Amino acid sequence: MALVGDNIMADNLKNLRVVLVATRNPLNIGAAARAMSNFGAPRLRVVNPYEVAFREARSAVGAADLLARAEQYEGVAEAVADCRLVVGTTAVGRRELQHRLQRLETGGRAIKQALRSGPVAILFGSERYGLSNQELSHCHWLMRIPTRGEHGSMNLGQAVAVCLYELIRGRKAAPSSTPPSEKRVLPTSREIERLTLVLLEVLYDSGYIKPRALAPDEKLRRLIRRIKLTPNDAEVLLGMMRQVGWKLAHPPKS
Amino acid sequence: MALVGDNIMADNLKNLRVVLVATRNPLNIGAAARAMSNFGAPRLRVVNPYEVAFREARSAVGAADLLARAEQYEGVAEAVADCRLVVGTTAVGRRELQHRLQRLETGGRAIKQALRSGPVAILFGSERYGLSNQELSHCHWLMRIPTRGEHGSMNLGQAVAVCLYELIRGRKAAPSSTPPSEKRVLPTSREIERLTLVLLEVLYDSGYIKPRALAPDEKLRRLIRRIKLTPNDAEVLLGMMRQVGWKLAHPPKS
Repeated sequence: MALVGDNIMADNLKNLRVVLVATRNPLNIGAAARAMSNFGAPRLRVVNPYEVAFREARSAVGAADLLARAEQYEGVAEAVADCRLVVGTTAVGRRELQHRLQRLETGGRAIKQALRSGPVAILFGSERYGLSNQELSHCHWLMRIPTRGEHGSMNLGQAVAVCLYELIRGRKAAPSSTPPSEKRVLPTSREIERLTLVLLEVLYDSGYIKPRALAPDEKLRRLIRRIKLTPNDAEVLLGMMRQVGWKLAHPPKS
Repeated sequence: MALVGDNIMADNLKNLRVVLVATRNPLNIGAAARAMSNFGAPRLRVVNPYEVAFREARSAVGAADLLARAEQYEGVAEAVADCRLVVGTTAVGRRELQHRLQRLETGGRAIKQALRSGPVAILFGSERYGLSNQELSHCHWLMRIPTRGEHGSMNLGQAVAVCLYELIRGRKAAPSSTPPSEKRVLPTSREIERLTLVLLEVLYDSGYIKPRALAPDEKLRRLIRRIKLTPNDAEVLLGMMRQVGWKLAHPPKS
């Protein structure tokens, strides 16, 4: 009983990229792929999986194609480069969060909205450590599944399934007839990263960042994501900072 | 961070019995147990599992107790004897259904309602065959997760996780760790103006703004208002740009 609505629903998740970061167990990648196939999310990306042979994961019942087409990346920056919204998942508890944290029900709504206008990434960290601060610095905000405080950490494949379910939950047969909303379009991660790196250089050259500063790029990346630039404003700022950088590198002869 | 809300939520699922029927793979029983622990559903029942050694399932991370307390039954009838509502899960497609079929979103509502007054069972069939007609005959109605028609059959552990999530979804009182006021506090106009002027000077000194440019401050001011900084981020940016400005004004002696 292939319902029309269920097929349309798949279209809605075409813009979603499920990004698995440093996953240790290839069975979990396979399980994630299966859930993606179940819920109609075709685009899987893996960043530095522990086993290169993940494409043979037995747990990917019915999702071998999806797994075969999975895109592999060296780092999070590359894996989310084309995404306008990047959301990290966390079980919370372990580290001080420097990001806004949303429950899945609320975050899911924002993701659905963003999916209408462009690529969105949801990041899932490694089974043991979750997402590192460095990896989190690429995220606009974080999301958690409302598990119990006493046992918050979910199995990776199950967490992916639950998140995807939230995104397709309640879909009616009819596609939403609302036009792509006029909501703010965010810059792609590639644009954000470009701005971050140029500004980083300016701040080094000006002496604002000391040579031995600890991971200054993370702080800066978070800052720039927080301020919600439009693509156009990001472009303008990039132009400004490039010129400033050039001037710092070419002081007037005295 | 054991949140009050999350504990209350657990109470609500005390009346739930997750019943796994003729499960073949003990890892799936372990995965179901883990999801149950994550979402606060303590009572697992197994009917004729293929492996008696299921209690050692490695996939039950954090749920060993729950698994050890799992109740074992010979048949579905005994496993649901104390339940006032019995719901079977199905991926549909294979057999003619003689039961009412509800999507999880709708069925979940009915289950939550019933949980308030007594024990409710949700049945999950074997990985290969699902629930037999005989087993289905113990059910009041059936429920399906809204997966794609082309690939409807979910992994057992993932299906359990998704069903439980639906039951606890939207429960209030699990606060996120963000401060209560989710509203962004904007900087004062004074702070915006200060940042604008410093940036303006940097852009002049770097040559980005030409000496005869027309009202460049207006454009810049609009830009800075658009990007909706928090007061703290405005402060940080101000510090950065001051340092950059200083450096531009004091080039290294060559």
